[in-house]
Order: sequence, then structure tokens, then C-alpha cells
Amino acid sequence: VDSAFLEQIEAIVGPQGLVTDPIEAQSYLADWRGAYSGVARLIVRPSNTEQVSAVMTLCARAGIAVVPQGGNTGLCGGSIPDSSGDQVVMSLTRMNRVIEVDPLNDTITVEAGVVLQRIQDVALEVNRFFPLSLGAQGSCTVGGNLATNAGGTAVLRYGNMRELTLGIEVVLPDGRIWNGLRGLRKDNTGYDLKQLFIGAEGTLGIITAAVLRLYPQPKAVATAWVAIPSTHAAIDLIRLVQSQCGDRLTGFELMSRVSVEFVAQHIPGCKDVFANAYPWYVLMELSDTRADTNLSEMLEQSLAQAFETGHVLDAVVAASKAQVNALWALREGISEAQNHEGPSLKHDISIAVTQIPDFIATVGQRLAQIVPDLRLVTYGHVGDGNLHYNVSKPIELDSDRFKARADELTEAIYQTTAEFNGSISAEHGLGVAKRDAARRYKAPLELELMQQLKRAIDPNGLMNPGKVL
Amino acid sequence: VDSAFLEQIEAIVGPQGLVTDPIEAQSYLADWRGAYSGVARLIVRPSNTEQVSAVMTLCARAGIAVVPQGGNTGLCGGSIPDSSGDQVVMSLTRMNRVIEVDPLNDTITVEAGVVLQRIQDVALEVNRFFPLSLGAQGSCTVGGNLATNAGGTAVLRYGNMRELTLGIEVVLPDGRIWNGLRGLRKDNTGYDLKQLFIGAEGTLGIITAAVLRLYPQPKAVATAWVAIPSTHAAIDLIRLVQSQCGDRLTGFELMSRVSVEFVAQHIPGCKDVFANAYPWYVLMELSDTRADTNLSEMLEQSLAQAFETGHVLDAVVAASKAQVNALWALREGISEAQNHEGPSLKHDISIAVTQIPDFIATVGQRLAQIVPDLRLVTYGHVGDGNLHYNVSKPIELDSDRFKARADELTEAIYQTTAEFNGSISAEHGLGVAKRDAARRYKAPLELELMQQLKRAIDPNGLMNPGKVL
Repeated sequence: VDSAFLEQIEAIVGPQGLVTDPIEAQSYLADWRGAYSGVARLIVRPSNTEQVSAVMTLCARAGIAVVPQGGNTGLCGGSIPDSSGDQVVMSLTRMNRVIEVDPLNDTITVEAGVVLQRIQDVALEVNRFFPLSLGAQGSCTVGGNLATNAGGTAVLRYGNMRELTLGIEVVLPDGRIWNGLRGLRKDNTGYDLKQLFIGAEGTLGIITAAVLRLYPQPKAVATAWVAIPSTHAAIDLIRLVQSQCGDRLTGFELMSRVSVEFVAQHIPGCKDVFANAYPWYVLMELSDTRADTNLSEMLEQSLAQAFETGHVLDAVVAASKAQVNALWALREGISEAQNHEGPSLKHDISIAVTQIPDFIATVGQRLAQIVPDLRLVTYGHVGDGNLHYNVSKPIELDSDRFKARADELTEAIYQTTAEFNGSISAEHGLGVAKRDAARRYKAPLELELMQQLKRAIDPNGLMNPGKVL
Repeated sequence: VDSAFLEQIEAIVGPQGLVTDPIEAQSYLADWRGAYSGVARLIVRPSNTEQVSAVMTLCARAGIAVVPQGGNTGLCGGSIPDSSGDQVVMSLTRMNRVIEVDPLNDTITVEAGVVLQRIQDVALEVNRFFPLSLGAQGSCTVGGNLATNAGGTAVLRYGNMRELTLGIEVVLPDGRIWNGLRGLRKDNTGYDLKQLFIGAEGTLGIITAAVLRLYPQPKAVATAWVAIPSTHAAIDLIRLVQSQCGDRLTGFELMSRVSVEFVAQHIPGCKDVFANAYPWYVLMELSDTRADTNLSEMLEQSLAQAFETGHVLDAVVAASKAQVNALWALREGISEAQNHEGPSLKHDISIAVTQIPDFIATVGQRLAQIVPDLRLVTYGHVGDGNLHYNVSKPIELDSDRFKARADELTEAIYQTTAEFNGSISAEHGLGVAKRDAARRYKAPLELELMQQLKRAIDPNGLMNPGKVL
């Protein structure tokens, strides 16, 4: 590293603002799964927006690219530098102040480095609710949630991170600060600039703070574990429950039999719910902001009706908080459990909700022609049309042989998704993992428009280059 | 008009696609209030997207600017051509097909010229609900709703038009068609391009079709007319009801005494609800997708509690659909009633919900120093922080004298809004009406970013020039 540049950076962020220890540096240079790693010119940890701005200004003048990073929990390598050693990693994790929580305006204002779980907790303390909920919530940051337009299990009722955001502050590629930290529900004075930066994975600027929406806190929750005969039944069931319970339906997760078997086998403390095996399962959650509504009874009525029509084969409504946790553990353990079953492919696709049964049937047939006896760990937020369409190697097949067919399997999944007019990245983003695939499966005109926006906002290509585009 | 150009256009849209009758033309060249009018080179009414594309391509080649127009119900002159006679008005009203309604995927796909009310009706026919609701719904079109990111009375629960939209189709300034008609709930494969065009008031492209979200249909509704002592009481009341009833609160409209007096005096069939006069009123609506919930009782309980604490002075819960309609007529008649009371200024501002009482007090004092005895027709969607802060001339003041102070009054309102970190156009857009004011009250950096986007997407400035920017 050019020592004059280093001195200038240190003058801005102080010695605590630089990561120099090589062991510590590794956690900024590789992702938690070990799938992506890179080298950095510098790892900078500014403590406020002015420092981000000053560092970005210096980098812009020197023509040095910057890779913004939050909790580094992404799955697509979007926050990892490349291998050139030229890029600066800008970690926002020291910027972890809750600036203001306003339960009357139903807003919370936070710096980008605040961990998601903390926002949920602070909201709860003032009798409010922040709905974004996902596996990494104990370590992912709101800046990363914004940069990737994070999804999770509450999207069905509350929307993605984009819908939960009222205002943001951004450091632009030239170092200037755009303060869009407004807590307004309505503002039609020109282009909605925040939409540009949300979901852009750090390629247009660095989000440094945000004003987020809070909601009334649910006071009653009812959770059911439901065995169903088919994916068609899942679609019918969600519409039945939604027509009867409306907004009370806040969670609807589908899981294949194999997914549940893997969790029961590999995750300590998790076990199957029913004595019999069923082809598909649904984890369903109703919630209500009033405590005096009999949600469990409502849920039981809907399930009884669906049982009569054959849409439900068996069901149990959780009777205690411990049971609720055990059911969610079964759902949330799938990705980890799958890692114990050898090499796998993990996907994150979305299609129209109604097309899920056809999609699952079609892609299953195509994959079987490439590699027979695959174990299909299909699960996801089916109410949003979002499937984690994961595939584990056949028991009898050698790992290397499976890996040799991996690209072919992935292409078949992407190709089928494209034929169903779906998305090859529903909630994870593109990062580097799906950048090239997006180039093949997105319309050329969309790629061109994206490039036009990139050039307009970041003409020198210094913001997280090589990601998304 | 250059006859060769006219012939080329007619070859595309046919004789029915051109408005040549001068009387008929007037409805495309002036707004319904008579506040804005212009002259056009041509008024074109294409019947499908390919025609829009072909016309736009021709105009782009000839360097001719295009003004997209929907139902022409806007309040800010955004769809009216300028006075040069050079611009082409492109009316989308012939494109009025409902392309598809899918109650299982909870989506409806429509062309841009479909009237809002029709979308509501088609949704109802399949037992679904499209929430966007506003005064002009009988004649405004979905293209205009999208171009202005329309708001209305259901934003509190369901959000603006932006939140109700899953995909759009756009004809770009060079005539190419971007087909983004996807009904996906989640798609994180790069920049969310639709966000750019929604709310851009036709300055970046012409929205020709959209996929919109449908919701479970409310089966129970409870509506109350409530007298309150102050604007502070309104804020406390909304939070009380929201904490008790959560998502069931789907409407919360505030009105000053003068607003209600005007309606009772001028709108046939409308009369005041209570024998006594009160300083402020709230129209409150709860709704539920289940028919068997006792919403009226729930509403009465909340109101009784607020009565005990002095937040409510009097209240009545509607006992019939006729009473519900009468209460909404009182609210919806305000703008028209005000026209019977001489010259007025009409504004559409938003601030943080909690700041509404301070804002109303502050701006009221400032206006009184400019013109004493103004009649403050303050009302609006207070749950969204959105006030139609309207002002009618004092009874004793000459109209011309009032008009002479109009700019000064408007500046005081905008200036106060800016001090409260608010928006001078919450839901109406900028059009030409507020374009210059936005230039004064928006941050220079925001204006610069908007210009950068405009240049990136419409480098020759042919899309609705002079609007917004």
C-alpha cells in the first residue's frame, strides 16, 4: 500500500478504523461459507458518515475502487473484494448507533452497521414491531439488508426491505453525502432516489443510515405444522387461509419430505412431528395485534375444513412457545442440515405463486434426466412464490461425479425458471455468484438500462466493481 | 403540422387514433379545473403498445417531444402540453383492456388506460380487493396512477401505488418497449427498474401496462365519525386505535370545523353529524377480511376509552351502509365545497405524523400575520402525515386582495413544510405547478441526481419536457 495514501486514510478514521492484523483481516476478505475470498489494499472501518465520505472522496480522487461491507453474511459474494489487491473494503460495522426510535411516528432511524436483531429488539422495547426476519438476523446489518433488498419469512405480510424503508442516507461515488433520512409516508416531489440504491448491492453508493417503518406489535400468534399431499394442495391451502384470515396469515413455508428428514437426522434437538411420513409439509403462522382474538381456534377451523377436502393430511397447532420454537427450528435448520449430506446446489428462485406446482414438476423431471435419484431439498417462502430449490447429491453417486454435473443442473434450473417468467435470484441478490447467469437470463434491454444507470451515478466504476453488472 | 409526419402517424394509429375535432381536442389540451392549458402539434390515441412504440420512435427521430396523458385528472398540469404547439399529446385512454386477472396469484394485469374504478370492480368480481382509492377513481387511469405514484385514503394500510405494483411495461424515449410485466413478489436480479418510472410523471418513458397486487377482500367494515378537541388528540387517537386494532385500521381522515361547515352548506344532501360544533373531526374506518369479527364493538370500545381520557368529545359509529356513505360524502365533498367560498389555495403537504399538531399551529400563526381571518380548510390522510392544507379567503376580504397575497401565503406554507423536513407534494406530484417550488425546497444534490437520471434515460429530453425538472 502506498504509505501516503495509508496515512491520509488513517488521519480520517484513526488507528481503530483500520484492520491491519492479518488474522482479523480474514473475516473481511472471505465469506462465512468460504465460497468467496479476495485480497484488499486496505480494510477501513469508519465510525461515522463524515468518515465514509472523506475516505470515499480520497479513493475517488485516486481512482481506487471501494467494496462496501456489512455483516458479511451474504450468499453471493457481493461484499468480498476481488483478487487484485487494489480494492478498499469499507466495513460499516462500527457505525452501529440507533439514532432515534419514534413509536408515535412508527419509525426507527439507524446507522448502516446496526445488526438486524437489535432493530427488532429496540422496536419491541417501545411496543412496536420491525418485521424483517431472516436466518442471519443475529449478525447481518441493516446496510446489507438495504443493499440486497433482503426478504425472509415475513415478506408475505410486510414486504421486502424496500417496502420497510422510508428514507436513507448515501455516500455517493464521489464522496458527497446525500441525506435522504426522511420519515415521510408520502413524498411525490420527483424521482424516488432511495429506490435506486436499495437493492443495488453497493454498486451505486454506500448506504450509511436509514429511516425504517415500525408496525403494531403482534400480541397473539398461532403456529401450525401441516402435512399435505402435494404442492397443489399448498397453493389451495394458502388461498383458503388467506381468504378466511386475511392479513393474519404472516407466515407460510413449504418443505419437501427430504428437507425435514435431513433436519431430523442432523440438527440436534430437532425431530419429525408426525409418526407417518408425508410428501410435503407447511409451517403456517397467523398473528394478530389484538391479544383477545382466538387465533388458534381460527387456524384449527381452517385446517379442519382443508382436512375435509383432502388438502391437509395431518396437522398440529403449537400449544406452547417451546413448540413454536421447535417447529421453526425444523424449518430453519434445513440449509445447515443439507451440508451434512454431501455436495449440494442451493438456489433462490421465484415465480408466480400459482405456477409453483408446475415448476416443481417440470424442473424435477429435467434434473432427473441429467442426474437420477437427486435428493430435492425444496423449501421456501411459498406465499411469495420464492423457493430455495436446493439439490443434494444422490446417496450412491460419487461427489466428484455430482460436482461435474453441477453447472448442467444449475442451467436446467435457471432455464426452467426463465421459461416460467421467474427470477433466478428472489432475495439473495446477484453479487458475483449470479452476475454472469443474470447476463444470460435477463432481457438485453434491462441490462442496458442498468448499465445506463450505473454510468450515470458511478461514471468511473469505483463502487463495488464486478458485482451485479 | 407537417403533412408527411401526420401521414406517418396516421398510418400507425389509423384515423380513430387521431383527435382532429377542435372541440374534442380541448379535453386533451386543458385540465378539468381549467388551471392549465396548452396547444399540441397532434393528439394521438394509440390502441396498443406497438402503436405507442411506433409513434414514439417516429417522434424520437424527428426530435418531437411527447406528453403522455391518462384520464387527465391531475391537479398539477403534468399531462398538459406547453403553449409552443410543438408537442405531441399521447393519450393512453384507448388502451383499456384488462389483460388478465389471476385471483390465485393475487394479481391483475391491465393496460395503462384502464380506469381505476374498473380495476376495483374486476377485483371484487373474483372476490379480491384492489385498495387504491381516491376521488377521481371514476375517470383517472392506472397509467396516471403509476406516473404520479397515486395515494388516497387507503395508503395507511396498503401503501401508495408504488407498493401495489409488481411489474410494468414501458415504452422508452427512443421507442423501444421494455416488458417488465412480471407478477413476482420477489426479484433481486439487479436494479429494480420499475421504481424509476413509477412517480416520474412521464418524464422518463410511457407506462403502457402493469401487473398490480390484489388483496383479500374486506368482509366487515366499521366506520365512525368522531369529534375531537385538538390535533394532538388526533395523533393520540390514531396510535390508540392502531395499537388495539392493528391492521384493521384502514382509514383515518382529519378535518377542521371549517371544512365540515363548508360541505354541510354547499354539498346537497350533506349535513353536519352532531348538534354541537367541535374544533376537529376524524373519519375512522376499520375493516377485516373475516365477516364474523365484531368490528363495530371493537371500534366502540376504543372510542369509549378515548372518551374517558378526553381525546374524544363525541362519536357515532355508522349503523348502515347509507350512513357510511353519508360520512364519506362529508369527507369527500370538502374540495368541491371550498370552491363555493371564493378564491382558495390548495396544498398537499406531508410531514412526520407526530409533527402534525406543531405544524398546524406554526403555519397557522404565520399565515395569520400575512392575512388575518383566513378560513383554514385543513384536512387529509393524517395517518400518513398527509395534509391537504387548504386556505379560503377571509369572508370580509376582497378576492383580488386575497389573490395578491397568494404567493406569499404559499411560500409561508412551503417554507414551514421545509422547516419540518416535510414534502411540498405528498401525493399530487410536481407537474408544472410545483416544479419551480421543488427547485427551491429540494436539496441541490437531489435535483442534480434527478437530472443525471433524466439524462441517462432520456438524453434528448423528449419525454414530457418542462414537467418535474
